[in-house]
Amino acid sequence: MNPTRTGPQYHRAPGPQGVPPGEVRDRTERFRRGLVAAGLVGALVTHRPDRYYLAGTTQEGFLWVPAAGDPALWILRDPGRARAESPVPVEPVASGRELWDRARRAAGEGPVGIVAEVFPASWLARIGTDRWADVGPLLAGLRRRKSAWEVERMREAGRLVARVYEHAAATLRPGVTEAEWAGELLGRAMAWGHEGWLWSRGPFEAYPWHVVSGPNTLAAGAVDTPMPGVGRSAAFPVGAGDRPIEPGEPVVVDFGVSLAGYQTDQTRTFCLGRPPGWLRDLYDALLEVHRTAAALLRPGVSAGEMFEAARRRAEELGIEGYLGPPERRCRFVGHGVGLETVEAPLIAEGSSEVLREGDAVALEPKAVLPGLGGCGVEDTFLVTADGPVRLTPMPQALWVV
Amino acid sequence: MNPTRTGPQYHRAPGPQGVPPGEVRDRTERFRRGLVAAGLVGALVTHRPDRYYLAGTTQEGFLWVPAAGDPALWILRDPGRARAESPVPVEPVASGRELWDRARRAAGEGPVGIVAEVFPASWLARIGTDRWADVGPLLAGLRRRKSAWEVERMREAGRLVARVYEHAAATLRPGVTEAEWAGELLGRAMAWGHEGWLWSRGPFEAYPWHVVSGPNTLAAGAVDTPMPGVGRSAAFPVGAGDRPIEPGEPVVVDFGVSLAGYQTDQTRTFCLGRPPGWLRDLYDALLEVHRTAAALLRPGVSAGEMFEAARRRAEELGIEGYLGPPERRCRFVGHGVGLETVEAPLIAEGSSEVLREGDAVALEPKAVLPGLGGCGVEDTFLVTADGPVRLTPMPQALWVV
Repeated sequence: MNPTRTGPQYHRAPGPQGVPPGEVRDRTERFRRGLVAAGLVGALVTHRPDRYYLAGTTQEGFLWVPAAGDPALWILRDPGRARAESPVPVEPVASGRELWDRARRAAGEGPVGIVAEVFPASWLARIGTDRWADVGPLLAGLRRRKSAWEVERMREAGRLVARVYEHAAATLRPGVTEAEWAGELLGRAMAWGHEGWLWSRGPFEAYPWHVVSGPNTLAAGAVDTPMPGVGRSAAFPVGAGDRPIEPGEPVVVDFGVSLAGYQTDQTRTFCLGRPPGWLRDLYDALLEVHRTAAALLRPGVSAGEMFEAARRRAEELGIEGYLGPPERRCRFVGHGVGLETVEAPLIAEGSSEVLREGDAVALEPKAVLPGLGGCGVEDTFLVTADGPVRLTPMPQALWVV
Repeated sequence: MNPTRTGPQYHRAPGPQGVPPGEVRDRTERFRRGLVAAGLVGALVTHRPDRYYLAGTTQEGFLWVPAAGDPALWILRDPGRARAESPVPVEPVASGRELWDRARRAAGEGPVGIVAEVFPASWLARIGTDRWADVGPLLAGLRRRKSAWEVERMREAGRLVARVYEHAAATLRPGVTEAEWAGELLGRAMAWGHEGWLWSRGPFEAYPWHVVSGPNTLAAGAVDTPMPGVGRSAAFPVGAGDRPIEPGEPVVVDFGVSLAGYQTDQTRTFCLGRPPGWLRDLYDALLEVHRTAAALLRPGVSAGEMFEAARRRAEELGIEGYLGPPERRCRFVGHGVGLETVEAPLIAEGSSEVLREGDAVALEPKAVLPGLGGCGVEDTFLVTADGPVRLTPMPQALWVV
């Protein structure tokens, strides 16, 4: 190691590892206009995916976007890295106390915008005003419109994940446990560029290793999906567990990656050796439902009507009763995806959302036949005026290996 | 797959994968007494590590602990699994709306306890009273006293992680990148029982793959540690990056696992081939600091004085100036650990905390020589009346491979 020759290599914008500066300026300006329309003095952006979206950096500190004037990054650590990553002016702060002093001065009498679902109650007293408003929906709306740069990041994630699924097909073997195999896939994904982390603000952390096999596909669980998995303990009772995988059963793999913060979401069902007839039939019907929904992915289509169309198709195919967990009907067939695993819009029962150009949507019909097992198929699509563009380039059939 | 023979196997208490029922009852009763002392009507426990600690389950829903009467689990999904995992009576709820209806009725006029640092601001209106109090410190205090069952879980985690470090020594090779190697370690850890997840409520998610090598040990970053790492992009700019590891340089591995929700925290420094003299000297001095601090781990010792003793020893050894990031002095040398990576007590400058029997503490002095590089050594200890018991059974020397 020659200290005069090398030093740490920080990530710099622009490039695949940094949000282009023009894009950051466009995003903060659109956000600022939303703050003006809402009559706020500004917004204090604290959550990392939100700061990354608006400023291109997740260095520790806050992003302040005033309704009038220029945004600022107040950075505790590390200001130098924040400057390399973001075009937003960086103001170093020395302590958490100074960070909150700045927040209080900026918020004044309010009303100040916060993203309330990720802003801890313990912080409310620190902003110095009880006049706050939730700017989460504003930000979620902006984030729906994926730029060309974002789409390219998601295409890269889709290509990476396709490689992981090919590796899965090459390594699935009798007796390997769900968790052992999931760990192998995760290790390869990291070798090929996956950051290891999937941002999510759901009730459960998003984890990449969702591998559910055989009778474990029948398990109910703590996540609103037909096949939450068994997991390894009561502490983390979802996803891959300790069950050895056997031939002739469904193996559902809902594996995710992130690159430069961006994810795609996808699922394939594997079978070691000859699949039973019920699995082949159920999967074929499910893929039909998936295609019915995908064909509707156009700007202007209602998410609620799209859900109904998918459900009607499932009814025609005789699998409608199997789409949801046993105790209730299926209520959704897809969701937005991007910096977080689940974003707007939700393709759900009764949704009044309307699809827009630039939405990235994961469609994920899954079905469980009571007493037999379940399967799923999921892809991520970009919504364009010319129709859906699939970002997850993998064969859609049941993967028989 | 024979549906009549097998079904999903849920985790059940008691056992290594479930908190023993007697222990759950003891914990909720101690918590309840704290609520009475604080004059609260009860506490609404929503965060998963907290619910797991008090009730032994993380199925989706809330735990209600009234000041008078018995606790209840209001479970959205899955009530059957919650019943298998927890001795607390389970009341199934059909929707999020019903969950909040119950919370409002129970909280009444308040004051109601919440853990404010993990309770979203957007939920405050839903509890129906603005009379709330933060019970986070009460719960953190209870969680400090590790039971025999908890210690056994942490011993198991320590044994698993020792195996991962042996695997690390066997697989470190020139040219492997930080992230590729970290992925291999993670894959093996999952094969051997790691749940894949480390609970944490710090500013950054806890991730197991903290591998930082060569000049990357000089990088500043978004986490309050001397060696935060470079990471893979501005989205996740900490931990393992894309740098190939070379012979003769420090490779710092701060790798964690969890078993039944419990973690230990540990760090070792590796070197491929002959380590440079500065690294050997720095590591030896650091290990002396580590031992000085560890020798003080006894009930009644002040955490602040322990920090000062470690700093004085570092000063005598001439490395005090290298313990913190270049721009500021070191301010901590250790922290509690258990269900979360960082818990009470913090072994920090000026801390007024006093060590107690049953505390589990990770001591982690780390040092960076400007222009050269850094190293670290960390172990998790149990505080007992008979002195510290190390829960991480690995050689403490520099690992030269």
